Amino acid sequence: MAQQVRAHNIAVSRDGYAAGEGQSLERPFGHADPRQLMSWAFEAESFPGRDEPGGSRGFADLLVREFHRNVGAEIMGRNKFGPQRGPWTDEEWQGWWGDEPPFRTPVFVMTHHPRPSFTLSDTTFHFVSGEPAEVLEQALAAADGKDVRIGGGAQTLRQFLDAGLVDTLHVAVAPLELGAGSRLWESPDELEDRFRHDVVPGPHEMVHHLFWRE
Amino acid sequence: MAQQVRAHNIAVSRDGYAAGEGQSLERPFGHADPRQLMSWAFEAESFPGRDEPGGSRGFADLLVREFHRNVGAEIMGRNKFGPQRGPWTDEEWQGWWGDEPPFRTPVFVMTHHPRPSFTLSDTTFHFVSGEPAEVLEQALAAADGKDVRIGGGAQTLRQFLDAGLVDTLHVAVAPLELGAGSRLWESPDELEDRFRHDVVPGPHEMVHHLFWRE
Repeated sequence: MAQQVRAHNIAVSRDGYAAGEGQSLERPFGHADPRQLMSWAFEAESFPGRDEPGGSRGFADLLVREFHRNVGAEIMGRNKFGPQRGPWTDEEWQGWWGDEPPFRTPVFVMTHHPRPSFTLSDTTFHFVSGEPAEVLEQALAAADGKDVRIGGGAQTLRQFLDAGLVDTLHVAVAPLELGAGSRLWESPDELEDRFRHDVVPGPHEMVHHLFWRE
Repeated sequence: MAQQVRAHNIAVSRDGYAAGEGQSLERPFGHADPRQLMSWAFEAESFPGRDEPGGSRGFADLLVREFHRNVGAEIMGRNKFGPQRGPWTDEEWQGWWGDEPPFRTPVFVMTHHPRPSFTLSDTTFHFVSGEPAEVLEQALAAADGKDVRIGGGAQTLRQFLDAGLVDTLHVAVAPLELGAGSRLWESPDELEDRFRHDVVPGPHEMVHHLFWRE
C-alpha cells in the first residue's frame, strides 16, 4: 500500500476541544485536565513511557499500538511542541518529552519562526514553514517509505483535514465538555463527506471514531 | 515482552457456537453460514485473500490486522484443517486454503493420527499429538521468539483456555443463534476468573470481547 497520512489518539471533549484555553508551561492543556481526556490511553500497556505493569492489553492497547505501527515521520503544530508563542526566545526548550521523545522518527514542527534542527535520542526535530502540502512532501520524503503521522494539535490536524491530506484518523471523544479552547470540530459529522466512519464505544464512556478514505 | 499465546477473530454465535453441526467438505461450518459469523472480518481491507479494494480500514481492520502481527507459529485442531475424521485416508487433502495458505509460519495440526509434514508456499503443516502444553512447547520453539496463535476451532481453543495457556483472546459474537455444533462457551462470563475483559460493540451488531491475563 502507498504511504498513508494518519492521525491517532486525538482526544477531544464532547464539544470537540482537544485542549482548553490558557495553555502554558504549567498547564499544557490549558483549563482542560489531560487526565480526563487521555486516561483511556494512559492505562494502555503500550502507552509510551508507561513504566508500571498491569496496563490494559484490550481495546485501548489495540488503539495505542497503532500510533507507532509503520510510522516514519510526524508532523506537529508548534503549539504541541511547547508553550512558547512568537519568535523563539528560548532555544533551550526541546519539547515536553525529555531526553527520550516517544516519536523515534524525524518530527516536523510547523512554525513561521526559523530554528535549527536538533536531535534527542532517536528523534530529530525540524522546524518548517509552508502550506500543509509542502510540509507533507518533506515528511513523506523523510519517512523512508513508511507512513506520516499528523500529531496535532487540533488546529494543525484540521488544516491537514481541510486540505484533503489525511487518509485515516482516530479521534477519541471523552465524556466531558470544555466550552472553549483549541477545537477540532463541532461534530464528527463535519467529516462524513470525506470519510467512511466507524463509531465504537469503549471503556470509560469513551467513544472512538475511526475514519478512513476510500 | 515474553512470547505470548494469542487467539484472534474467533467468531461465535450469541449462544457460543463457532461452527454448526454436520461439518463437511461442502459445509465447513456445518449448518452455520460462515458469512453470518465472519462477514465483519471479510469486509476488512486486510482480510487474507481479499482481492477487491474498498474494504473497511476502521475497527474491523484493526482487529483483523492483529491476526498476523508478530505471530511465529499457529496451533489448530484437526477439524479446522479439514473435514476428514479418523485415520488419514486421503493425504491429498492439504487444508482449505489453496496453494497460498494465509498463515506463512509453521502450523501445528493436533491429531492422534500421524501424517508427514508438508509445505505450501510459506506455510509448513506439522501433524502432532499430545497434551496442549506439549504441543505449545513445540510451537513456541518453532516461532523463533515470536508469539503463538491458537487458531481454533472452538474445542481446541477451549482445551488451551482450560489448561491456562492463553494470554490474550479476541472473540467476535455475531447476532445469531445456532443451537448446536462446536461450542466455545455458554457465556463469556466463564472466562472472567482468569482474564481482564473489554466488551466492545462494533458495526453490524457484532460484539467484540477482548480478554487478557495480567
